[in-house]
Amino acid sequence: MSDSKPEFPPELRRDPLTGIWVVIADRGGRPSGRFEERDVEPKVCPFCPGNEGMTPPEIYAVRPNGGEANGPGWTVRVVPNKFRAFDADLQLRRKAIGMYDWMLAVGAHEVIIETPDDDAQLRSMPPDQVALVLDTYKHRLEDLRRDARFRHIVIFRNYRTPAGASLKHPHSQVIALPVVPKLVKDRLLAALQYFRAKERCLVCDIIDQEVYDGRRVVAQNEHFIALVPFAARFPYEIALYPRRHQHDFLVINEAEKYGLVAILQDILNRYFALLGEKDTGKNVPYNMVLQTAPNTTPRPGRPDYWGTIEYDYHWHIELIPRLTRMAGFEWGTGLYINIKQPEKAAHELAHAHELAAQQTSVA
Amino acid sequence: MSDSKPEFPPELRRDPLTGIWVVIADRGGRPSGRFEERDVEPKVCPFCPGNEGMTPPEIYAVRPNGGEANGPGWTVRVVPNKFRAFDADLQLRRKAIGMYDWMLAVGAHEVIIETPDDDAQLRSMPPDQVALVLDTYKHRLEDLRRDARFRHIVIFRNYRTPAGASLKHPHSQVIALPVVPKLVKDRLLAALQYFRAKERCLVCDIIDQEVYDGRRVVAQNEHFIALVPFAARFPYEIALYPRRHQHDFLVINEAEKYGLVAILQDILNRYFALLGEKDTGKNVPYNMVLQTAPNTTPRPGRPDYWGTIEYDYHWHIELIPRLTRMAGFEWGTGLYINIKQPEKAAHELAHAHELAAQQTSVA
Repeated sequence: MSDSKPEFPPELRRDPLTGIWVVIADRGGRPSGRFEERDVEPKVCPFCPGNEGMTPPEIYAVRPNGGEANGPGWTVRVVPNKFRAFDADLQLRRKAIGMYDWMLAVGAHEVIIETPDDDAQLRSMPPDQVALVLDTYKHRLEDLRRDARFRHIVIFRNYRTPAGASLKHPHSQVIALPVVPKLVKDRLLAALQYFRAKERCLVCDIIDQEVYDGRRVVAQNEHFIALVPFAARFPYEIALYPRRHQHDFLVINEAEKYGLVAILQDILNRYFALLGEKDTGKNVPYNMVLQTAPNTTPRPGRPDYWGTIEYDYHWHIELIPRLTRMAGFEWGTGLYINIKQPEKAAHELAHAHELAAQQTSVA
Repeated sequence: MSDSKPEFPPELRRDPLTGIWVVIADRGGRPSGRFEERDVEPKVCPFCPGNEGMTPPEIYAVRPNGGEANGPGWTVRVVPNKFRAFDADLQLRRKAIGMYDWMLAVGAHEVIIETPDDDAQLRSMPPDQVALVLDTYKHRLEDLRRDARFRHIVIFRNYRTPAGASLKHPHSQVIALPVVPKLVKDRLLAALQYFRAKERCLVCDIIDQEVYDGRRVVAQNEHFIALVPFAARFPYEIALYPRRHQHDFLVINEAEKYGLVAILQDILNRYFALLGEKDTGKNVPYNMVLQTAPNTTPRPGRPDYWGTIEYDYHWHIELIPRLTRMAGFEWGTGLYINIKQPEKAAHELAHAHELAAQQTSVA
């Protein structure tokens, strides 16, 4: 990882047995151990104000009091990922290599620097700052969807090394893909089939059932609900759903946005109370993923599957604490073993602050 | 994980959006950090000869010179997993919970103790001992398939803690499932569709193309070939294929079995030369998975999907070194980013011993 320039452009290759696309983005270098990680934080953080020259030139930034691009004064800043797995400068190109399916990994790979403050935590930032981060998610989605080459855009957040983060400075990542991933297609088709059969949204029905049942509800407010999914794959996994039916994150209104800020910070504070490191103030390592609708912008001159057929969806955010490891069973079957009953996880998270207070008084 | 008895029987729950089954096997205990792992090896190894009483009573063992069950004298021994995620004593029971799909996690979860020698390594065991382990795989597959409740049996090997192993004593695991996992169904259907269209095996054609191309071939012998897959998900991932078309591991003959022993040990020695710890003799952490046909034993009184339709397959073994981590992108999309070009990985593995010699002479 000493060199950010790959020897050849990144590619997408399709596994002929599973239909899963793999991005081949060679980072060069010699064979070694866990070579994807920085074990030690770099001494100078490239995401801190004053170090703007250490990142590629910015794509977008908010500077409330003005100031020049690629200089300080920003409250949020978006830059290309230095170690990117996708390249927007490539042409859309698909071909067969013998019996295999191949394409250039045309796409975008960006970093959203969420705050100038290196020590900030998403759970305790001012709500307006979190709202600004969500506005930036919207901005990047809208902007990238204008490019019809990009069929799906995923926004995610890796927090701490065990969750895949290489820098502690608060940041999210954006990846724009030239394909709709199979896992996303599965979700869209399940929702569509349900809608065709019932003329109701699958996720709206799930929310209704969960509210009625109550055992997996962790928190709710006027606009959002936080659930441990019935078939949660991981201990303390949570899904955040907008209560109003909306297929796409871009549909969210201002009141809903602040409802999301509130429930997101609430859940992260529950994670911290139950699973975080009280002495360092660090939360449990986690991944956060925005699951929203694919890009349906028509591709000029081409009938396009996802642009022309109907689909149904209900966007949501997934939160996955990284407490356990994948092993041979999971790789071999695609099934998961969750060693925490979802109802118990929900109960503990719903009472996280009381449980944390008990732990402290015992200790 | 202090208690091996779960409070309630393990369950399978289906995610209504993705169709993926999750095993809920609660281990009890308080919320904590990485609670699935033993950080410290237990002082007394429950898999060592003389400690047979520390495991549940054995299911199967080979004692060439005789001896009593659950006593020493065995060369290979199979016991139920003490922390099992599946329970063979449960009845097959499927039901709806509101709009969700649920079933009891009826199944088997066994440990194959591969040798009495706590310090042995699969890569350097006598070939006859590895052949005995493969014979035990066959025995467990045959035995478990007689139970028509079990629709699919997966055999895998987790090596070292980062790959999910909690004990160093060489062992594999066997899990018998009451469902065919979606990922396995995808593979069976891809192979079937290809066969219907071409009257040829998809994997046989892949092998032919790979041999002709050559760039991803790591090793081969009369009966087996070791490839880095065209769309390898992980750096240095390898697939071992029998050259002769065979849908099921049970079809393997004696000569082929020794061909598999040879290529498996060859590949593990290449992993060690390139990625292993020379000072401790430990190999790189890896997962190994046997991908073979599902159980087609008819279920009495029930027409069964996998028992009645045709399918096509070509069994193989997957080897995945655990060098990188999954993060938000992978969870969110089901796609993988591989930072090692498969052709480079294959080249390095094909020349692993020369590369290792160069490294040593430089150091």
